[in-house]
Amino acid sequence: MSPQTTFTVDPWGIAEHGLDLGGQARAESVFALSNGHIGLRGNLDEGEPHGLPGTYLNGVFELRPLPYAEGGYGYPESGQSVINVTNGKIIRLLVDDEPFDLRYGELRHHQRRLDFREGLLRRDAEWTSPAGRTVKVSSTRLVSLTQRAIAAVDYRVTAVDGPIRVVLQSELVANEQLPGGAEADPRAAAVLEAPLVAEARMAAGTKAVLVHRTRYSGQRVAVGMDHLIEGPEGFHVTAECAEDQGRVSVTTVLHPGEELRLTKFTAYGWSATRSLPAVRDQVEAALTAARYTGWNGLVAEQREFLKDFWETSDIQIDGDVELQQAVRFALFHVLQAGARSEERAIPAKGLTGPGYDGHSFWDTETFVLPVLTYCLPDAVKQALRWRHTTLPLARERAAQLGLAGAVFPWRTIRGEECSGYWPAGTAAFHIGADIAVAAVRYVRATGDVEFEKAYGLELLVETARMWRSLGHHDAAGRFRIEGVTGPDEYSAVADNNVFTNLMAQTNLRAAAEAAARHQTVAAALGVDTEETAAWRDAARAMYIPYDEKLGVHPQADGFTDHQLWDFDATPPEKYPLLLHYPYFDLYRKQVVKQADLVLAMQVRGDAFTDEQKARNFAYYERLTVRDSSLSACTQAVIAAEVGQLDLAYDYTAEAALMDLHDLGGNTKDGLHMASLAGACLALVAGFGGLRDHGDQLSFRPRLPAGLRRLAFAMKIRGTLLHVEITHTRTTYTLRRGSSLNLLHEGEPLRVEPGRPASRPMAVPETPERCLQPPGREPARRQQQSGPAVGSGAEPPHLAAE
Amino acid sequence: MSPQTTFTVDPWGIAEHGLDLGGQARAESVFALSNGHIGLRGNLDEGEPHGLPGTYLNGVFELRPLPYAEGGYGYPESGQSVINVTNGKIIRLLVDDEPFDLRYGELRHHQRRLDFREGLLRRDAEWTSPAGRTVKVSSTRLVSLTQRAIAAVDYRVTAVDGPIRVVLQSELVANEQLPGGAEADPRAAAVLEAPLVAEARMAAGTKAVLVHRTRYSGQRVAVGMDHLIEGPEGFHVTAECAEDQGRVSVTTVLHPGEELRLTKFTAYGWSATRSLPAVRDQVEAALTAARYTGWNGLVAEQREFLKDFWETSDIQIDGDVELQQAVRFALFHVLQAGARSEERAIPAKGLTGPGYDGHSFWDTETFVLPVLTYCLPDAVKQALRWRHTTLPLARERAAQLGLAGAVFPWRTIRGEECSGYWPAGTAAFHIGADIAVAAVRYVRATGDVEFEKAYGLELLVETARMWRSLGHHDAAGRFRIEGVTGPDEYSAVADNNVFTNLMAQTNLRAAAEAAARHQTVAAALGVDTEETAAWRDAARAMYIPYDEKLGVHPQADGFTDHQLWDFDATPPEKYPLLLHYPYFDLYRKQVVKQADLVLAMQVRGDAFTDEQKARNFAYYERLTVRDSSLSACTQAVIAAEVGQLDLAYDYTAEAALMDLHDLGGNTKDGLHMASLAGACLALVAGFGGLRDHGDQLSFRPRLPAGLRRLAFAMKIRGTLLHVEITHTRTTYTLRRGSSLNLLHEGEPLRVEPGRPASRPMAVPETPERCLQPPGREPARRQQQSGPAVGSGAEPPHLAAE
Repeated sequence: MSPQTTFTVDPWGIAEHGLDLGGQARAESVFALSNGHIGLRGNLDEGEPHGLPGTYLNGVFELRPLPYAEGGYGYPESGQSVINVTNGKIIRLLVDDEPFDLRYGELRHHQRRLDFREGLLRRDAEWTSPAGRTVKVSSTRLVSLTQRAIAAVDYRVTAVDGPIRVVLQSELVANEQLPGGAEADPRAAAVLEAPLVAEARMAAGTKAVLVHRTRYSGQRVAVGMDHLIEGPEGFHVTAECAEDQGRVSVTTVLHPGEELRLTKFTAYGWSATRSLPAVRDQVEAALTAARYTGWNGLVAEQREFLKDFWETSDIQIDGDVELQQAVRFALFHVLQAGARSEERAIPAKGLTGPGYDGHSFWDTETFVLPVLTYCLPDAVKQALRWRHTTLPLARERAAQLGLAGAVFPWRTIRGEECSGYWPAGTAAFHIGADIAVAAVRYVRATGDVEFEKAYGLELLVETARMWRSLGHHDAAGRFRIEGVTGPDEYSAVADNNVFTNLMAQTNLRAAAEAAARHQTVAAALGVDTEETAAWRDAARAMYIPYDEKLGVHPQADGFTDHQLWDFDATPPEKYPLLLHYPYFDLYRKQVVKQADLVLAMQVRGDAFTDEQKARNFAYYERLTVRDSSLSACTQAVIAAEVGQLDLAYDYTAEAALMDLHDLGGNTKDGLHMASLAGACLALVAGFGGLRDHGDQLSFRPRLPAGLRRLAFAMKIRGTLLHVEITHTRTTYTLRRGSSLNLLHEGEPLRVEPGRPASRPMAVPETPERCLQPPGREPARRQQQSGPAVGSGAEPPHLAAE
Repeated sequence: MSPQTTFTVDPWGIAEHGLDLGGQARAESVFALSNGHIGLRGNLDEGEPHGLPGTYLNGVFELRPLPYAEGGYGYPESGQSVINVTNGKIIRLLVDDEPFDLRYGELRHHQRRLDFREGLLRRDAEWTSPAGRTVKVSSTRLVSLTQRAIAAVDYRVTAVDGPIRVVLQSELVANEQLPGGAEADPRAAAVLEAPLVAEARMAAGTKAVLVHRTRYSGQRVAVGMDHLIEGPEGFHVTAECAEDQGRVSVTTVLHPGEELRLTKFTAYGWSATRSLPAVRDQVEAALTAARYTGWNGLVAEQREFLKDFWETSDIQIDGDVELQQAVRFALFHVLQAGARSEERAIPAKGLTGPGYDGHSFWDTETFVLPVLTYCLPDAVKQALRWRHTTLPLARERAAQLGLAGAVFPWRTIRGEECSGYWPAGTAAFHIGADIAVAAVRYVRATGDVEFEKAYGLELLVETARMWRSLGHHDAAGRFRIEGVTGPDEYSAVADNNVFTNLMAQTNLRAAAEAAARHQTVAAALGVDTEETAAWRDAARAMYIPYDEKLGVHPQADGFTDHQLWDFDATPPEKYPLLLHYPYFDLYRKQVVKQADLVLAMQVRGDAFTDEQKARNFAYYERLTVRDSSLSACTQAVIAAEVGQLDLAYDYTAEAALMDLHDLGGNTKDGLHMASLAGACLALVAGFGGLRDHGDQLSFRPRLPAGLRRLAFAMKIRGTLLHVEITHTRTTYTLRRGSSLNLLHEGEPLRVEPGRPASRPMAVPETPERCLQPPGREPARRQQQSGPAVGSGAEPPHLAAE
């Protein structure tokens, strides 16, 4: 499947024409529906053929042992893997005696379209069976953004010739057999076979319910389905169930032009603590509510929810319709990942696939939450409340590691550390500051003082305590943080990683400030003025290494003394490097997997001069291979800041097209939420020049030649700010709220309702384009004239996180 | 078992009185017999009770998978574990109907003694069965140092009262059941169950042979036994065999005072390539030769071999008989480990136990070979020829890691890397230089030019190539080696480890010099003058970090900037630290498991001034916890050099008593060959002040107050040098050879036969005793007056490598 040819460029949706069996798994990720609680991969209604069947519930996982050739103290013994729960998507169709299976017979027409404004996945097919019978099948699937437990399908089959006997089998299938086996690529998820143990089942009328339990993690999962059936007189319905199967069958004879319509409501519930009847009843109650709302009601609610979302969150681009499509695709999936996760993690792949075992990483706080903060702040609150629920585990982990406060896991589903390689896991302590900074951003953007008192402060305090105990003062009085791993995974266990130290500095300061704001709550957490003074002192004394000879910041102590990676001797097929070179060699040389020092310049721009930013960016551009999907967006942001606008444009497109163009070759395992969110950041923080690490939002708009106009909205402290950038001017409009102070090009600007503020575009210098490692340049984004098909250039093959 | 009370102090042997069931495994290691090819743990003849049964053949292992929670490029997938091969030691005794089992009945007398001059393990027991029958049992066991395939036992049972019916069952037992299970301590060996697959068996007359094959590694192991039987008229003999058992039974009736004597010859052979008949016949031929030699003949050969060894290798100590015993114990076991290993590795535990999976490490070249070089140089040649046979594997590994030349494995049996944790395995590249330097030392000590041309040069060339490709020149022209791990395992993956860089420098220089000596051979290896020039240049430019502020060498870049380990907050039960603290914390702080910079000062004393040595030693003493058995000996050597003679004495005793006092608590898994060899080094290089990194041997003798006299001999270039040190003078005597030039206190000295050269003892300053981390001080060695029982002080509990 070449995405350029089968995915139509369309600003409000993704459409696929025809069906490419080889690219199915990829399309299933792209067409995944989710509300953050339930995730359904875009598998065909009839179940097969499939790339990778997938139905996920946020937080449902199975435990598996983590083995080590040589163990060590503090190594986690047990991992958590997302499991494919009971599949409620399946509606099998028998046409006369032949199953509707697109691998056989003749597929006359097949089209799927995911609509961003409707939140529906529509499918239309016309198929002639091997015996020559032709039917039209259309289905519309949704995962409700308003009724958290509910997914639904409207399925219609129409006889073209006939009469034909049709049977619809609407199913719940537990312990589905999954394709594949041992994957050589360590990034692919572990496949867990038959993780569900049957506990209860029922089938009656048009309804069936299955209850299972996971074998080791002891989570109870209930799934129920109910149906509305419309068709010619005389159809027959039966319901039955077995341990791993629930089935409602409808059979009738259709004459040409006649239609059989099945509306299937599916409800999911799970709990690690509640009783079997409680979980089962919860599912049946959700089904009852959904039936009451009805199909049309669910569709209307969905549309309403999305209308509101797009009004406050859309990013509009003129001049590059493919990028417009990609960024809306990105926003839509980020919304789906976060909308209803509700005190659960937002995984790196959302609920679109089993990649990375369904784990959440620092990606969420660093890339996803900065986007959600300004468009769906409640989702940020929920995500941070989830982190807060894991504080007891994080404190235990800190104690195990000999540290104060809390150490959050590098990768997890429930909160326990699941990383089996500490140099690139536990040693990445920056996760603590990433969480703290996300909390600070949320509070600053929303003014949610109650959250700060109840959750934010404790997150800040416990992470500040961790930093204070992790670092130490040297003889010169500098506060040093040693033996840690920064964002770049081609370095590990280094001293004074600049990103880490700057983030820790922010964390320590913010904790002290928040404790001062809420002294009673802080005192209840055991914080006294000596402790906050120790945080402030450590922050003030934080050591930031700088290489005077080269005039750049080393990513960490000694980095710029290291040998340069021999890029000339590295052929294209040896990327991603981690699959072809040992860690020992990557770690000791100057080669960067993903923005690290460059990310520090984004999140702590105040710590660098403009000249340092330009020199640092140029230096690290030559070293950065982007073997991670968490890099292009950050490079876009800083490229824009240092005036490399075309380069920023190229990186923005790369981030945005990561999944639509499958640049990492692993979209089949799920979408790259952080890269999708990163594409939004590339536009807003890159071309919009938004920085939010100070007290006020700050903008320095720039626009590459390829774009005519960029416009976006942001929710900020009860206001809705609209920003529109063209090559001549930037206009700030307040659509809600009373007034807002911000900075434009460093100058204060007050925006008031009904009085848009306009400022002319600065004319920056155009520096020479920075160079990347040979063969690792981003694809040049061609300038487009009006709506057109995307870039013809083949992007480089990137490995994604 | 308290070793002080049951092991008698005896300068020429180790005797045990009584039997402590709880300490059996430890005693089995202490009483192990080996010739470097066969290793028999000191299990009781009757098989049970046992601590840990063990019969090993050098090079016989089984493969096992190495699992990883998160894999990575270049991680070894398969490990090698020494296996317990067919047990040929067993002679079971039935007294009337009761098995001779020391757990039952009454043990009236039990004594074992390992004699260092005879090379025999003698045992005498008098036992009354639960039914009241009393027998005397005596056995003498040997593993022949002259007939490599042969072990033998002379077993006698005498009736004290009677008449009694006795049955002797002499057995071969394959796939013995081993005690234990999953060990929490990662240092213990993996237990492999039933690794032997039966291939052939025979039993006839007094003989039985079993042939097995290992399941995955495909090694064929043949064991045969034959017997001589003497006793009262009318004994009856049967022979039988099954898949995993061969048995020769002798039965008779003994009247009081009558003796039944069974002389058992056991022969072992194995091969990964030879056919079943070939391996079986080899074993039967060895048996035939042994029977021809006879028991008395084997005993006489053994005594002759050892007479020669002690004449040229003994280290004599006056003033501390326990230390005298310990150092002879050490020499004896080092001899046993290396005597007949013949192109096989010398494992870290020799063939005395399954610890460390039977792997060989850098220990061999760094601690064991320096001792063998001057007393059993042929064993060194064999050990280095083994390394040479593994060059194809080491070249493959280098290529896999992107390096030139050869990368030797951190731990292995056959030559493949078996380390499952690269930061403390593959990253310890110094193993290459350790091997190279061992080869240089051997050639310099023996003048074995043929070895140098055929083996040594290639080892030097391939390791020099590795160093040249591993390091790089920085902008200032310094040659840097980054991202490697030095000897200290509480640091890892650091830049410019001083030990590593200095050893690499020696390696590069030695390779260039050897290539210049053997230009034709070098050319055949592809070495040209550009390559040797590149080696010389890199050696000359080698970067050695130095901390000007503190006036000490950091172990590696940045080490002295790191946070100090909080020793005061570390209670005694938290040692060894690696079992109680995560690597991440150990690595990033100033805490040293084992001599690293201090070892650099021993092997490259020329690279440090006397003042630097004193300051460095004092600095690292405060940081070194000796959680490794590879540390005390080196600390002893440098302590002596910097004038800390009492401290050196304490460390020497610790190294020497590592196993006799079970200081690491793991002698049960096998003896610590490197610590035993290290005890010899502590005496010769410490108090003798021997250094051999220059062209001539150099001595700076010193003697602690506790010792009256130290004397030792060294084979050097065909001469035999005897050195005798007292508090007043040192006397050098040439016992063989024509003349020898050496350095005494830096002054040239020529020793000629018949003309002992005597020099007065220098009177060094006595600096203040250096301090160790609290609780980690070595036990103070009490000064002794004449032969006495050893130190009463309880030594600190040490974790051993």
